[in-house]
Amino acid sequence: MKELEKITPLETDFAKWYTDVVKQGNLIAYGPAKGTLVFKPNSYGIWELIQQNLNEIFKERGVNNVYLPLLIPESLFSLEKDHIEGFNPELATVTHVGNKELQEKYYIRPTSEVLFADLFKNSIDSYNDLPLVYNQWANVVRWEKTTNPFLRSREFLWQEGHTCHADPIEARKLTRCMISTYAKFLKNFLAIPTIVGKKTPYEKFAGACSTYTVEAMMKDGRALQAGTSHYLAQNFSKPYSIVFKNKNNELENVYQTSWGVSTRLIGALIMTHGDNRGIIIPPRVAPIQIDLIELFGAKSAKVKEVSQKLYELLRRKWRVRVDASDKQPGFKAANSEIQGVPLRIEIGPRDLENDMVTIVRRDTLEKTLVNYNDVKKIIQKKLDDIHDNLYKSAKDRLESKTVWVDTYEEFKKEIQKNNFVVAPFCCLDEAEIKIKEETGATSRCIPKTLDKPNKNKLCIFDTCKTETNRYVIFAKAY
Amino acid sequence: MKELEKITPLETDFAKWYTDVVKQGNLIAYGPAKGTLVFKPNSYGIWELIQQNLNEIFKERGVNNVYLPLLIPESLFSLEKDHIEGFNPELATVTHVGNKELQEKYYIRPTSEVLFADLFKNSIDSYNDLPLVYNQWANVVRWEKTTNPFLRSREFLWQEGHTCHADPIEARKLTRCMISTYAKFLKNFLAIPTIVGKKTPYEKFAGACSTYTVEAMMKDGRALQAGTSHYLAQNFSKPYSIVFKNKNNELENVYQTSWGVSTRLIGALIMTHGDNRGIIIPPRVAPIQIDLIELFGAKSAKVKEVSQKLYELLRRKWRVRVDASDKQPGFKAANSEIQGVPLRIEIGPRDLENDMVTIVRRDTLEKTLVNYNDVKKIIQKKLDDIHDNLYKSAKDRLESKTVWVDTYEEFKKEIQKNNFVVAPFCCLDEAEIKIKEETGATSRCIPKTLDKPNKNKLCIFDTCKTETNRYVIFAKAY
Repeated sequence: MKELEKITPLETDFAKWYTDVVKQGNLIAYGPAKGTLVFKPNSYGIWELIQQNLNEIFKERGVNNVYLPLLIPESLFSLEKDHIEGFNPELATVTHVGNKELQEKYYIRPTSEVLFADLFKNSIDSYNDLPLVYNQWANVVRWEKTTNPFLRSREFLWQEGHTCHADPIEARKLTRCMISTYAKFLKNFLAIPTIVGKKTPYEKFAGACSTYTVEAMMKDGRALQAGTSHYLAQNFSKPYSIVFKNKNNELENVYQTSWGVSTRLIGALIMTHGDNRGIIIPPRVAPIQIDLIELFGAKSAKVKEVSQKLYELLRRKWRVRVDASDKQPGFKAANSEIQGVPLRIEIGPRDLENDMVTIVRRDTLEKTLVNYNDVKKIIQKKLDDIHDNLYKSAKDRLESKTVWVDTYEEFKKEIQKNNFVVAPFCCLDEAEIKIKEETGATSRCIPKTLDKPNKNKLCIFDTCKTETNRYVIFAKAY
Repeated sequence: MKELEKITPLETDFAKWYTDVVKQGNLIAYGPAKGTLVFKPNSYGIWELIQQNLNEIFKERGVNNVYLPLLIPESLFSLEKDHIEGFNPELATVTHVGNKELQEKYYIRPTSEVLFADLFKNSIDSYNDLPLVYNQWANVVRWEKTTNPFLRSREFLWQEGHTCHADPIEARKLTRCMISTYAKFLKNFLAIPTIVGKKTPYEKFAGACSTYTVEAMMKDGRALQAGTSHYLAQNFSKPYSIVFKNKNNELENVYQTSWGVSTRLIGALIMTHGDNRGIIIPPRVAPIQIDLIELFGAKSAKVKEVSQKLYELLRRKWRVRVDASDKQPGFKAANSEIQGVPLRIEIGPRDLENDMVTIVRRDTLEKTLVNYNDVKKIIQKKLDDIHDNLYKSAKDRLESKTVWVDTYEEFKKEIQKNNFVVAPFCCLDEAEIKIKEETGATSRCIPKTLDKPNKNKLCIFDTCKTETNRYVIFAKAY
């Protein structure tokens, strides 16, 4: 057990703060291949809870889990042109087995559209077989140039849903349904508020007809794309020949969607909720929800006894850990805080003289002295309060740091303040490229959930000079 | 929905039977890269239930789940000589990203000993940090020459446990504990009896000090290695410099274990329980435990009503599916059987005149006519009976087809009958190689769980001529 190190205050250097809390929170180690990560129990546990809860939601929506291969033959990948062009520079390529060169190269999947296309091609006969609603939990590899724990690593974990429909309207509806599902999930489980919207043509997924996104705001004001849902139309079903017999007994290409969230979500929750004491894990996805901290346990039989009793009582319903080490009380508290455990219960000889223990909230640091027989009754309420408080703080920040502008001058000023900036915008590719070059901001989405003025305005892009009723959110982003 | 095809009887051609039932059971599709598999919902669902149940057992044993990277730099892999030599011919090798050649090659993990070694090296300070008991669920790639669904494919899914200990006795104990855990799991969840034992030096894991195995017998009498647990001693901790400060404050190399089971288990349960009507999935890992089959549902409001009522009632406790299609009753029954669903409930207008439905067991095909209000009461008992019956049949077969021999002549005769053959054996590598060449059989293990004669006998290997008290099980194996 190493000593705790100092955390750089987030106001001083947010990037350094992030690296510090990730390291101190015992979340990761760096893998031996550059840009790869080891997910230690404290972060993999979050991912397991995300999986478990999303699986339950998926099941209600009729999603079936499957698992497809890791490797994609070069010839298969190359059929959809935008797709291969978008991914090619990041593809890890298998050329040899042992010392032998292979006849055909294989790419490690950066996403699985073409693998699902190959599966669907051979699975569908008529409209009776549709819709097909599949999902897989898998690792994917994208050889990014710069990496950052959870946010951008060369290998990450995710779920990717892939569906086929006989009807384009049904497919579009599912695309939107999944993005709302993600927004709700982020709110209800990760306590992260988001803005839901459609990506501009420039920012949409390589191969998609349209891309929806949930965008979250980190504590430094930068945006993080937390989940996406794509309407693929027939963009894959045509080159990959995925057809079905329709009700008129004619062959038709299916309509497809795909959607996913990844281990980025762990980065998102750290940068949404963490503070200068370390990370704060929202209770519903916390691998440890309650730390039972024995104070001077070695010297007090009663401390041991109450700790054991509470452990047995609480573990039936919550995820509980006991710290019975002989470290100093201050160290134990700091260690629990730095690992983001939502509640800790300090069990010490002095409080126990009156049968009391102290419950400490990780978010507010508020302490409650309570009879140890009453602990069980108030735990769930405390955990729910923490969730609600984390969500409210994040939502207040998102709202107060989202500003509307009418001109490029205002736009540049507000982007420099690390705000989300909503502006009338023409959505031309060249406009996006120039704005990115000049300000560092990218378009995040055309928001669905914000009220907008009902008259047309001039696009902020200075050379555009067209009127538009389309408002786009821009921000610097991860 | 395609029509059902004929299944080759297992007595006629077991290999063909296996391919037929795997295909008809809607378990897999072939991946686009040769030798890879798609796990469809009916097989991935089994794997999810194996995961879920093993995770619960692991948690009780203090196992922490983690996730390590997919790619291993060549330089890291090469440090343990036996290990790299054993795996080298099967290693899929990444040499390029996009069109650029990498400075160092990466191997796709065939197993993760060296990745865990690299993690452990940087995680341990003193004996206070030990034991470390980690597990990961992951995909691995081994470029096998010949492949067979579930049993041997170029990519498969598994769990791999990796532990570090301050004490070799504790490490050896854990190695044995995990192999018993697997044996119990196979018995209690997959209804598969096994023989537990130690591998001979020739058959042990590349890099291990000793390997324990659980060996199951398939319906054709061939053996299938269903799980292994390795005591690695300091074989990895020395070349990879994994050290800890011991109680004397001296640096010492840790003692390690690793253990795993894979998606092979799905192949094992098919070849242990399947029959000429298709696969039979043991109830505790069946993605669908009960098929509710509506007979003439379109014509009878009562059929629909009772089906809906039973569905709502049963789904709270079991995994239930409704077949409300307009196919013929015979087709629906055959379809449920071919997919291995343990119980089906036929709801038809004639039985319903007396408020009755028919419950059919997949294993015995026994039918029970029962008032539909009483269904819920008897389901669990039926499922448990199926499990017990499947286990008993498999155990009877294993016992009746395990024979003891004293001479090589007897040995060859019994191996030809596809029996498990127990023989006194010297365990020399050259003896194993010659026996394999001459009979096709390999040593499966030195069994721990069989009573053996307490006097020494001559080794069956004809040129050996030494006496031994070591008995080894041989069989043809998958």
